Amino acid sequence: MAHGGGGRLMHELVNRMFGAVFTNPILDRRHDAAVLPASPHRLAFTTDSYVVHPLFFPGGDLGSMAVHGTVNDLAMSGARPQYLSAGFILEEGLPMETLWRLVVSMGAAARNAGVSIVTGDTKVVDPGKGDGVYVNTTGLGVLEHALQIEPQSVAEGDAILISGDVGRHGMAVMAVREGLSFESAIESDSCPLWEPVQALITAGIAVHCLRDLTRGGLAATLNEIAEASGKRLEVQETRIPVRDDVRAACGMLGLDPTHVACEGRFVAFVPEAEVERALSLLRRTSAGSGACRLGAVAPGDRGEVILRGTLGVDRLLAMPSGQPLPRIC
Amino acid sequence: MAHGGGGRLMHELVNRMFGAVFTNPILDRRHDAAVLPASPHRLAFTTDSYVVHPLFFPGGDLGSMAVHGTVNDLAMSGARPQYLSAGFILEEGLPMETLWRLVVSMGAAARNAGVSIVTGDTKVVDPGKGDGVYVNTTGLGVLEHALQIEPQSVAEGDAILISGDVGRHGMAVMAVREGLSFESAIESDSCPLWEPVQALITAGIAVHCLRDLTRGGLAATLNEIAEASGKRLEVQETRIPVRDDVRAACGMLGLDPTHVACEGRFVAFVPEAEVERALSLLRRTSAGSGACRLGAVAPGDRGEVILRGTLGVDRLLAMPSGQPLPRIC
Repeated sequence: MAHGGGGRLMHELVNRMFGAVFTNPILDRRHDAAVLPASPHRLAFTTDSYVVHPLFFPGGDLGSMAVHGTVNDLAMSGARPQYLSAGFILEEGLPMETLWRLVVSMGAAARNAGVSIVTGDTKVVDPGKGDGVYVNTTGLGVLEHALQIEPQSVAEGDAILISGDVGRHGMAVMAVREGLSFESAIESDSCPLWEPVQALITAGIAVHCLRDLTRGGLAATLNEIAEASGKRLEVQETRIPVRDDVRAACGMLGLDPTHVACEGRFVAFVPEAEVERALSLLRRTSAGSGACRLGAVAPGDRGEVILRGTLGVDRLLAMPSGQPLPRIC
Repeated sequence: MAHGGGGRLMHELVNRMFGAVFTNPILDRRHDAAVLPASPHRLAFTTDSYVVHPLFFPGGDLGSMAVHGTVNDLAMSGARPQYLSAGFILEEGLPMETLWRLVVSMGAAARNAGVSIVTGDTKVVDPGKGDGVYVNTTGLGVLEHALQIEPQSVAEGDAILISGDVGRHGMAVMAVREGLSFESAIESDSCPLWEPVQALITAGIAVHCLRDLTRGGLAATLNEIAEASGKRLEVQETRIPVRDDVRAACGMLGLDPTHVACEGRFVAFVPEAEVERALSLLRRTSAGSGACRLGAVAPGDRGEVILRGTLGVDRLLAMPSGQPLPRIC
């Protein structure tokens, strides 16, 4: 940034950029705090900081991820995402062109996800700190139904559905970071998930639990739900959708595809009787077009995840340990 | 952090720490998104990232500031602060003891300000990045009245009140950073401001505008309000409260006290007829004990701030330019 000591110049430029890209009636009032109309519904409120490295990768970037990640946390509680705040920590020396690309990507992702970025903040830190850009987004959504969508609602006999193939986001980021080139480019699965969730809820499906497959992938997500619900989850190994190129790339790096973070996939727990209808609703949405049934909640109160193998051999699907893929999300 | 690659270990430790210190019924449910009860009121929503350096300074630290700064942005819109999210970006290698002190300070500041920290997130970045700790807090508050508290509501004839002496926060941080020692330690004025604002609102004072004196200090705040309202603000120079030690310290560093950030001071625009009652209400609160009348909104539509000097000489109080005090807030 040629603005050197002129922090104020930089701020004005940045604020003009954000104002132009994110424009909406609430943001445009330019208050320190956005004023939101009253709503008769319960609200969901969630926050996430995005420190992904590199900033750009096939199928996405830090900006679009910072929208998708937070709107998806809202969607997973059954809330319709409505508003986002955006807090930027910029490293002095960040090319304005890089920031511009990220901001434009955030704006497009927000419009696509149906949310408004209504308030924001920018801080600049010393060169060498801050790794280019960190973004925090905090989201507000409305719960327009009376369902309690949470691990504690998971019931014996529930079917476990998954919205699509796993592992693409993590492998897309890893490939850039490690300078690997696979035969075909693997693109991140990063996308907003409210559309498929809304399809289930508005059709009256008794959704018991939803969870997106971010840090720690499918294995971590299922283990967290098993632990919080105290239920025994049984998953058919052959039904876990993994694209061939993702499986091959994971093999090269010695990674288990069920441990790799996704940014546009989720599991849904619904009563067995509603499986066919739920799958058909999911498959009609773009983010759920690859939906299938993974398994079911079995009798037992050990809070564990069982992987049923092809030869009928059962094994525990363990929680990933260590941090094989840091700063993927 | 002795946890090296064990990002998960670290996260568990951190989550236990946050859970123990910030405990409240909503956070304790440990969902990705906090679910908040419906409210019949308009909401205020604001975000801020805190990158202050050093992390600890006389009278405060990054943790307490991250609470005060955001609850004060809510209070300045006339909203009662209710909920905060907290997003931490931790540099690998940060001593756990340092984090613990900041988290305990945040917890105490939140209790003192009457807000609950209901959702959070932690990311860890590489050593050398992230400067120890960055914190983002995003706040939600309720507007329990019908006032429009904003620069556009400022009217000719309004009195301009200030809640106390200026410049202490910035000088407290600068003193530590520059290794200066003044005769007496200058402590930051960082504190929550809802109590004095609430006193005005519940007493029925027709508050037109409120603004805290953060980045750029009193000079920037008044200029922003003058610009947004298009009004001519006249301030008596001798009435600007500055403590002698702060004035002396500013003198040593060649700084203007009206340019120095505060974290617990604000200006209030109220009708002239309500000045005495407003000042008496403010002075009964701890954050407003030093309240006084600075000046008034004069006829004119130039959007400027006039400083009336002791000898009757008027001059423009200019917007501070450059960034004399980076990373003070």
